[in-house]
Amino acid sequence: MQNYKFVLEYDGTRYSGWQKLRDDDNTIQGKLEQVLSRMTGSDVQVIGAGRTDAGVHARGQAANAVLKTEKTEEEIKHYINHYLPEDIRVISVNKTDLRFHSRYHAVDKEYCYTIFMGEKPSVFERRYLYRLGQKLDVERMRLAVDHLIGTHDFRSFCGNKKMKKSTVRTIREIRIERNESEELLRITYRGDGFLQYMIRILTGTLIEVGRGEREPSSMRELLLAKERELAGYTAPPCGLCLVRVRYKTTE
Amino acid sequence: MQNYKFVLEYDGTRYSGWQKLRDDDNTIQGKLEQVLSRMTGSDVQVIGAGRTDAGVHARGQAANAVLKTEKTEEEIKHYINHYLPEDIRVISVNKTDLRFHSRYHAVDKEYCYTIFMGEKPSVFERRYLYRLGQKLDVERMRLAVDHLIGTHDFRSFCGNKKMKKSTVRTIREIRIERNESEELLRITYRGDGFLQYMIRILTGTLIEVGRGEREPSSMRELLLAKERELAGYTAPPCGLCLVRVRYKTTE
Repeated sequence: MQNYKFVLEYDGTRYSGWQKLRDDDNTIQGKLEQVLSRMTGSDVQVIGAGRTDAGVHARGQAANAVLKTEKTEEEIKHYINHYLPEDIRVISVNKTDLRFHSRYHAVDKEYCYTIFMGEKPSVFERRYLYRLGQKLDVERMRLAVDHLIGTHDFRSFCGNKKMKKSTVRTIREIRIERNESEELLRITYRGDGFLQYMIRILTGTLIEVGRGEREPSSMRELLLAKERELAGYTAPPCGLCLVRVRYKTTE
Repeated sequence: MQNYKFVLEYDGTRYSGWQKLRDDDNTIQGKLEQVLSRMTGSDVQVIGAGRTDAGVHARGQAANAVLKTEKTEEEIKHYINHYLPEDIRVISVNKTDLRFHSRYHAVDKEYCYTIFMGEKPSVFERRYLYRLGQKLDVERMRLAVDHLIGTHDFRSFCGNKKMKKSTVRTIREIRIERNESEELLRITYRGDGFLQYMIRILTGTLIEVGRGEREPSSMRELLLAKERELAGYTAPPCGLCLVRVRYKTTE
């Protein structure tokens, strides 16, 4: 038995998200497990670093699975890519330590949320952005971001109200960039991990700040309140993309 | 009555091409005419600079139409973008001279053909490339290109065998670029105009050179032969994109 690390990308548009659900095999995890089980002739369980929601995309999702196979890494990659649909692609396959766990061992994750503020987005990018159709005050949003950086209890930004585990996370960076035409806004989030819907709720809240509906400084009280109802709306999944997952250099 | 110049982009995947056909209104021209006729309340004819084939994309198609409307350029753009499907987008609308004809007056057109030589293309670009799945010898292709630059009779590269008009065209530039991973090959064609299927036949022929099936120097005899049968295959439309149409600076 050998543990393998996978890096993959997907267009999440037509999927029910990463995580396999009981009565729905229309998930990225489900598709991968199907192909790997077929390849090895036995049931395979795939663990993903980020459990992306339905409709969320990935450019650098990480995953791992323990397999029994005679194939080389290159052959495994070739096999999976051949049998996976064209909107899921394995970028790399590498042997890794048997103890490696793609979710528990991740030390840093980067997500990108793309907002389109203009009239009509590029036909080539239309599936990978949130069509807001409204200009936002980026300077206000940047002021709000300052309060979110660091280690905080992000319960107010957690979609799972019954969350029993710790809701403390560390956000290392939130970068807001506008393109030349000032129609596209990209918010890059980097941190040790994110709660359910956390990036989408953070984005919805930042949009409300950018619209002038919330004060940048209100972020501080919002963190202290620990109440989901006080935060902004959940921005739609189509604008979100898991960009990269980092591990200690040895993994 | 006022003549307007349009610049537009489209994802050609689900269309039967630019030019309106008798029994098929699933064309870009047809969609535009529908929306403009609805806007003005009378039949509108749209003239396109490049009559792109079914499945071919555009980032900078130019077109013109004579309209009777009280709307400003910005209002026309807004109206069209609102009623056009999301895979066609008007980038700009500008008043122009009544004599301006987007096809006859074009002095330079640029097309780009994208070939994917690797195992599986990026899920985000998969619709805009030709999945060849084979490495090509780019140096051989560049040698072949040298014979094609300039003013020649391109009858051997014309899809319409009954073409009665002149098949003489001037190609100003053919640029072949590989990306870092050496999996993507982009061929940029620039010239005064291109015959039916010409870029796709040129591309198919260059691919055969890159595979070692044809000599680069054979391009010269091919041009002199003026026989479609002697040239290479017609590369598929999905890899082709009309990038830009240029006019004299006054237009």
